[in-house]
Amino acid sequence: MSLTTASDTIAPNRVTSLVKHLTDPQGFGDATLRNRRHDAIELLGGIPDPSALPTAELIESTRRVLGAPASGTDSLQYSRTAGLDPLRQWIAAREGVPVERILITNGGFHGISLSLAAIVDRGDLVAVDNPIFPLFLRGLELSQGQVLPIAVHNDGLDVEALSAELARGARPVAVYTVPDFHNPSQGTLPTAARTELVRLAEHYGFTVLADNPYRELRFRGEEQSFDVFNQSSHVVHINTFTKTLGPGLRLGWVVVPEHLVDAFVKLRSRQDSHSSTFVQSVVGDLLNAQPAFFDDNLATANALYRRRADLLADSLELHAPGEFQISQPEGGFFLWPRLLDDKIDAERLAHDASDEGVEYQRGSFFTSGEGSDADRHLRLAYGNVSEELLDEAAARIGRALARQRG
Amino acid sequence: MSLTTASDTIAPNRVTSLVKHLTDPQGFGDATLRNRRHDAIELLGGIPDPSALPTAELIESTRRVLGAPASGTDSLQYSRTAGLDPLRQWIAAREGVPVERILITNGGFHGISLSLAAIVDRGDLVAVDNPIFPLFLRGLELSQGQVLPIAVHNDGLDVEALSAELARGARPVAVYTVPDFHNPSQGTLPTAARTELVRLAEHYGFTVLADNPYRELRFRGEEQSFDVFNQSSHVVHINTFTKTLGPGLRLGWVVVPEHLVDAFVKLRSRQDSHSSTFVQSVVGDLLNAQPAFFDDNLATANALYRRRADLLADSLELHAPGEFQISQPEGGFFLWPRLLDDKIDAERLAHDASDEGVEYQRGSFFTSGEGSDADRHLRLAYGNVSEELLDEAAARIGRALARQRG
Repeated sequence: MSLTTASDTIAPNRVTSLVKHLTDPQGFGDATLRNRRHDAIELLGGIPDPSALPTAELIESTRRVLGAPASGTDSLQYSRTAGLDPLRQWIAAREGVPVERILITNGGFHGISLSLAAIVDRGDLVAVDNPIFPLFLRGLELSQGQVLPIAVHNDGLDVEALSAELARGARPVAVYTVPDFHNPSQGTLPTAARTELVRLAEHYGFTVLADNPYRELRFRGEEQSFDVFNQSSHVVHINTFTKTLGPGLRLGWVVVPEHLVDAFVKLRSRQDSHSSTFVQSVVGDLLNAQPAFFDDNLATANALYRRRADLLADSLELHAPGEFQISQPEGGFFLWPRLLDDKIDAERLAHDASDEGVEYQRGSFFTSGEGSDADRHLRLAYGNVSEELLDEAAARIGRALARQRG
Repeated sequence: MSLTTASDTIAPNRVTSLVKHLTDPQGFGDATLRNRRHDAIELLGGIPDPSALPTAELIESTRRVLGAPASGTDSLQYSRTAGLDPLRQWIAAREGVPVERILITNGGFHGISLSLAAIVDRGDLVAVDNPIFPLFLRGLELSQGQVLPIAVHNDGLDVEALSAELARGARPVAVYTVPDFHNPSQGTLPTAARTELVRLAEHYGFTVLADNPYRELRFRGEEQSFDVFNQSSHVVHINTFTKTLGPGLRLGWVVVPEHLVDAFVKLRSRQDSHSSTFVQSVVGDLLNAQPAFFDDNLATANALYRRRADLLADSLELHAPGEFQISQPEGGFFLWPRLLDDKIDAERLAHDASDEGVEYQRGSFFTSGEGSDADRHLRLAYGNVSEELLDEAAARIGRALARQRG
């Protein structure tokens, strides 16, 4: 055959149709484009405080794991797709399920993406929180599913609204919700509503994707049942060490119904084989060698997060009296104050706040459809911001509001 | 609405059509089903020797990274999808490409699966090695691509055979090959053939997936150019620290053409956000803080692998004289001896060998289509087996052969 020179004839190589319709970053990404002040206070992400992350303990566990005379290199070798047993066993005991139902992931978002690959076919309907953790919608683009927004109120997903949609004939294959300390709207779904949600799932044959990264961060109020999720064959319960031991570990897990375990393992083994044996070994050592560590560390961290949440709520009221409706957070990383005065332009407020030196996520970023008042809210993330800076952030938001009050 | 009790009416939840057609493990998985002897010698996987894995150095790097007063917790926080810059810079320097083209992955297989998601649409044709690394075919199931097998000989992919298929009208969107120390067939694609392969890619508009996990493991002979891959806009060059620093790290990279970077990042950010910041920080520290370490460690390891490869080849000739055609390996982890006598039943041989206490992968596992003589070969992996056990393994293969010689 004769080829002309490559430079004449070079043919474009291509990307899949899937890639072509993946959207560019919006919302979360936008912020980086702003003309941010060098002294800006960032209330942007669900990020744990550095002081809550176990650096010294991880050094010690790494030394123990890699330094073990006979087994030190095991943590640098291949391991099973489902995950390492010592780690899975610790998680299984905490979840109250057989170890076979625990699959290790590279963090909570990985649990979401695997669930979507396992359950959502192209064109399938997925009922979702409105407002919603917006990265879920980006993840859903890989499955090319359709969205049915369901309202989220102060106590999480409106299960009655979902029930009404189902009664009207909607047939989602999955329902996505954040049950504890909702992102962005901070509420927690009560046990009774969880029970009803699971009942609907079992009746209509959909799977609940219960995305629960903030579950361990309760600092007041009563825990709502997660057992109702773990006992159903129609729930994938998604969790992670991201908010408790550190996002950078990229270590999480899913509690999967027995009949889906094989599907998850088959998908995962075709993606990246398994999560880091090294990270699993080190964290497994940390949790098992020091049984009290995880809960003790959590108690200290949650006390810190409670002080921050309360201070932020108080400071907002102090620096912007009467401007916001605020619910007292019971846990998690987010305050979701609502602007009380409809005359305040929320988009202009975010712009002015940036100008004053405080960055937060506008509520409008979090809508998944019509009918939400998310655009009247601010999502203020306080997990990794000191009390002093939180007070200053509230003062800056107050000054930004004052600009519109003229 | 009225719901009857869940137990009457429970509806099955479902999995995607994609999951339904994922195959069960074959070949590699089969071996575990055999009635293996407790003292079996395993020549099964492309696994580095434990002595080559840097346990002490990783402890030291972990201590440095996590113990840094100001930045210790950074390695436990979120980081960018593309990967951490100190690690990417080290890799970019080694690859001779701008750092923007280096994307960090969770190991070599992850580089394959991301490439397939980016490039292969359902029904697309992918030309592949025959014989082939069989897990590639399992990975391809996620993209539902079609396979066009291309012969692999002693010096890797038969690029002329590929060229003839293209001339006859075949239009693959991608060509998958292992260019260095082929798995399973041990050969290396010469620079001239690489150049021609890239020229065909640029002419016909397909992408070469050059899967190169064994590249650093050369212990004799001349290195063939990888620059020809890195300089083309039609190659994704897939690599990993799996064979050099340890599979359990789950840390690899892809060299991606500039126009595909965005596609890879979009896909990856929807899957598991990014690779472990912790692992990237620790390995980045190891590589940058001790600039001589990587190559020194490799030199020691490669000397070990050379001794093992040569001993295994010699021992086979000693214990089974005249039974095998053997090429002297120049690197990598595999010996691919061919049975010279067509009267030997290769399947029975594997069974008898297992009975004698040696486990290897039958060549028949590695075919991707008609026309290969892979079923006349054995894939013997020597990377993590001592010289003493390799000699004993060869003796056991000799005894297994003797059974058919009666």
